[in-house]
Amino acid sequence: MKRIITISRQFGSGGRTIGAEVAKKLGIPYYNHDIIARASEKIGLSPEYIEKNSEDKGSASNWFGNAMAAMNPIGTINNGDLVWATQKKIVEQVAAEGPCVIVGRCADYILKDRDDVIKVFVYAPKAFRANRIVEIYGATDEMPEKRLKRMDKRRAAYYRYYTDMEWGEAKNYDLCLNSGALGIEKCEDILVDLYKTMK
Amino acid sequence: MKRIITISRQFGSGGRTIGAEVAKKLGIPYYNHDIIARASEKIGLSPEYIEKNSEDKGSASNWFGNAMAAMNPIGTINNGDLVWATQKKIVEQVAAEGPCVIVGRCADYILKDRDDVIKVFVYAPKAFRANRIVEIYGATDEMPEKRLKRMDKRRAAYYRYYTDMEWGEAKNYDLCLNSGALGIEKCEDILVDLYKTMK
Repeated sequence: MKRIITISRQFGSGGRTIGAEVAKKLGIPYYNHDIIARASEKIGLSPEYIEKNSEDKGSASNWFGNAMAAMNPIGTINNGDLVWATQKKIVEQVAAEGPCVIVGRCADYILKDRDDVIKVFVYAPKAFRANRIVEIYGATDEMPEKRLKRMDKRRAAYYRYYTDMEWGEAKNYDLCLNSGALGIEKCEDILVDLYKTMK
Repeated sequence: MKRIITISRQFGSGGRTIGAEVAKKLGIPYYNHDIIARASEKIGLSPEYIEKNSEDKGSASNWFGNAMAAMNPIGTINNGDLVWATQKKIVEQVAAEGPCVIVGRCADYILKDRDDVIKVFVYAPKAFRANRIVEIYGATDEMPEKRLKRMDKRRAAYYRYYTDMEWGEAKNYDLCLNSGALGIEKCEDILVDLYKTMK
């Protein structure tokens, strides 16, 4: 019996929207930034601090910089790894609590030993994603194509660093959906139906 | 309106079975080896000869050998390219004729400029495929894992040679289905439903 859906997604592909809508239609919890909030409480750090050290955000003091710093011989605990370890525990915890949809956070990897998980990757052509990020997040000084490249690169590096696997490789997922070709709603329908019917 | 389903598939993933069953359930034609037969008639060669020069089969005198030979400065027409050109025309022709399911033959690439095609890639874990090929095709002297590797390598090289794209990369498809994780029947259901409901 499948109880959990994990969604990895390219930036701007609509994976987050799909996850939230699927959870709503199935009447089960949806985790994304909520996990960050819960993680931040756990280790007594501010949500802003956690966010800066997680998957999508970060400046000079991001998880990757921290990860690099952690390789120094002095062996200090780095902030990125602390956030990772805490988020990993929380992903495991919400999965143990019951049915849910989890977007991002390498949840597919963290829950890889469970057999009740449907692992999904959502992707889309660059033009579709460029339009969508401007529509959803608004325009910025940075060109949409450059934003996409930066975010995808970041997610791929984060995933590779913590999982030792390649982000977005079909073999790591049960199904991969091209939201640009299929449409956001059709992706939602496929997942809702799959969740309801898969043994 | 989507009228055509193309299926690329890893050897042993059940993609061929899925294609045939989906076509049957939808009541539309299914093309696979039929295309070879039609191609062979077109150019007046025996089916055996055509098969030897196409996607899955071949020995020393296969399409790849021919392709290499074609690079010589004498510029002879090579058999592999002749078969490719003929099959390409026939794929275009059956697509123009009406709704259908086409398995293999780089049909996704050949029909890339049509907007009525659902492009599917079917894959599965090695263990699933190894079991399946022994079950379907019987055991041979060659170990199943070695057969898988040889066939996948061959399909990838064929695809790359004729399309200049990488075989099995998610971005070339509308959806990618892990038949080992989802089950053959569930993959069929997803495609039948998609075909019936996608605009």
